[in-house]
Amino acid sequence: MKKVLAINSGSSSFKFKLFSLPSNEVIAEGMADRVGLPDSTFTIKLSDGEKHEIREDIPTQEDAVQKLLDLLQEYHVVESINEIAGVGHRIVAGGEYFKESTIITKDNLQKIFDLKDYAPLHNPAEGKGIEAFMKILPGVPQVGVFDSAFHQSLDPVHYLYPVPYKYYEKYKARKYGAHGTSVRYVSNEAAKMLGKDLKNLKLIVCHLGSGASITAVKDGKSYDTSMGFSPLDGIEMATRSGSVDPSLLQYVMHKENLDIDQMIDILNNKSGLDGVSGISPDMRDLRKSDSERAKIARDIYINRVVRTVGAYMAEMKGMDALIFTAGVGEHDNDLRKRVMEYFEFVGLKPDLQANETNGQKFISQSDSKIKAMIIPTNEELMIEEDVVRLAGLE
Amino acid sequence: MKKVLAINSGSSSFKFKLFSLPSNEVIAEGMADRVGLPDSTFTIKLSDGEKHEIREDIPTQEDAVQKLLDLLQEYHVVESINEIAGVGHRIVAGGEYFKESTIITKDNLQKIFDLKDYAPLHNPAEGKGIEAFMKILPGVPQVGVFDSAFHQSLDPVHYLYPVPYKYYEKYKARKYGAHGTSVRYVSNEAAKMLGKDLKNLKLIVCHLGSGASITAVKDGKSYDTSMGFSPLDGIEMATRSGSVDPSLLQYVMHKENLDIDQMIDILNNKSGLDGVSGISPDMRDLRKSDSERAKIARDIYINRVVRTVGAYMAEMKGMDALIFTAGVGEHDNDLRKRVMEYFEFVGLKPDLQANETNGQKFISQSDSKIKAMIIPTNEELMIEEDVVRLAGLE
Repeated sequence: MKKVLAINSGSSSFKFKLFSLPSNEVIAEGMADRVGLPDSTFTIKLSDGEKHEIREDIPTQEDAVQKLLDLLQEYHVVESINEIAGVGHRIVAGGEYFKESTIITKDNLQKIFDLKDYAPLHNPAEGKGIEAFMKILPGVPQVGVFDSAFHQSLDPVHYLYPVPYKYYEKYKARKYGAHGTSVRYVSNEAAKMLGKDLKNLKLIVCHLGSGASITAVKDGKSYDTSMGFSPLDGIEMATRSGSVDPSLLQYVMHKENLDIDQMIDILNNKSGLDGVSGISPDMRDLRKSDSERAKIARDIYINRVVRTVGAYMAEMKGMDALIFTAGVGEHDNDLRKRVMEYFEFVGLKPDLQANETNGQKFISQSDSKIKAMIIPTNEELMIEEDVVRLAGLE
Repeated sequence: MKKVLAINSGSSSFKFKLFSLPSNEVIAEGMADRVGLPDSTFTIKLSDGEKHEIREDIPTQEDAVQKLLDLLQEYHVVESINEIAGVGHRIVAGGEYFKESTIITKDNLQKIFDLKDYAPLHNPAEGKGIEAFMKILPGVPQVGVFDSAFHQSLDPVHYLYPVPYKYYEKYKARKYGAHGTSVRYVSNEAAKMLGKDLKNLKLIVCHLGSGASITAVKDGKSYDTSMGFSPLDGIEMATRSGSVDPSLLQYVMHKENLDIDQMIDILNNKSGLDGVSGISPDMRDLRKSDSERAKIARDIYINRVVRTVGAYMAEMKGMDALIFTAGVGEHDNDLRKRVMEYFEFVGLKPDLQANETNGQKFISQSDSKIKAMIIPTNEELMIEEDVVRLAGLE
């Protein structure tokens, strides 16, 4: 029986899910963590719920890949490594080069590294993850699935920044967006739930996690999205600022004697919910906190979601459904309630009882003109499906 | 008969309007231009339409003020300088210190200079303008009317950026907004036209000039506004970029070897309509142009207006009226038409015939749920009224 791995690599880690064909069932998942660091761990959970955590030195990503293969055999998830028929990798930035999921070759692997300016924290780590799998599993197709690819349908009006045009011509400085794989999955699920053709729908997908973005999906395509040139742009996130007046950067840089790299690092890692609250980047902590600044940090987050949904509803001249996904979107019923309330004036009737609990479902009333839904995201399934398609595993 | 001057000072110029009390009639207007530069000119237009352009050396702002007083007497606009009972000055940045229009003293004049980081191009020039008038007209009340004051009603949720909170505590880094004097005037006019109390209205004012901003006015107060810490933030403008992903700055700065001051200068002066089109910062030129980039620059401008109106409509949970003002807003009927079309889904019915021509009027149909209007702005009248009130000239 053929199997497909979906991989999400970080700089010293990777997460994996192993799918069995043709059922698309997840038969193992887990992660290698702290690779190349002290206290490396490897966690694997089997389909029967059995979980193993192995603490041992994992000096390199290749060692981590080998460890994964050893454990899959040890726990009889696969009988032979040859069952692994393809590996899909999540890649954040595909630029204008990768307009869709692609089989990775030596040549286009270099392109993934070359695009590092667009996602400095992500692309190099993801490229190295692919290299490790290529080395340990030679001959097995490796597929790149790009977070930005779904947003390549954007019109120049939505992807260009109003800066000198030469920055686009010379350096491809433009909006790329992210979370595209998630939005693609969620949009398809939404159309199924609505019993309508995705091509006739105006959806707004709120992917609200520690990274957060909002996407307008029109006629099945990404129409506009809140992340920009990088995943820093858009709405407030756990530690990222989202959009900020460029002059404020200049002002703070002079006051604090920072260079641009230091400033951007602060906007990526010390801002957002964490920066405003001074307490935590985690919405669950802020929701429980009595602190005024925690409340403001949370209110700002909700406000920026409302603003962006409103903006995209106007751009699309309407909205058929508002969808919440990812960590915060799937689990924060108070946030969902508060966001939905803002759209009652255009005919969204929240079902507050349904909204109390989580899981995939409608959270608007049956006669609501605009529907609202929770749809847990599943980027790995999209990755797996792309591998199956591109590697011809049907 | 008492007279009041409304002044808008630039670095080497000032514009003036002279109002006669109690009618509030404008009896002279004009400008001193290229002060301290070669080819200085002084232009003055009288209430009978007579216009004079005087070319002579004007070495300093004080000379320009003296010239104004001389000309007002020479053309018998006033019989004596003593008729000038007060002077109002437009000031861009009032920070958190100036929450409303204020009589200027030596102490708070220093404050205007101290706030120069918030509006480097404006506040120093405006402060020097006040100094010149104080010197030439000692004893005449000088009133500062702050563009930012109207937005001091913003809630922290709307004025805080999601950056480390200490930047607000230490440096007052936050959203201040601009064009507040214009929005205040326009909102009051809108309430009169609607025959309703401003306190019960949700208005969205599109102040679209070479600088452009959009303000949500709720219950008579500024609720949110698109300019930010500085007048650079928000929507695309003639030469200003508006909001840009902060990472894009970092990327371009490294590619082009720019420091932050050079980058911000480019975002202020070489971006927006001019930067995208490569043709002109003037909407009239772009509207006539066949160039694809001119079309995109214009489309981006319209898109950012639509997005922001949509965002503010959602924030306020509705909109009673959409108002166009300032150069582009008052004169670009095609832009107004295209913006209005986006809001038909919420019940705005454009009156396309009314929209064809300019001037203060409704441009929505009489049964339109959301009204749309053109209201030519009149910041000088607001300035004059504030002088009358604060200097007790009633």
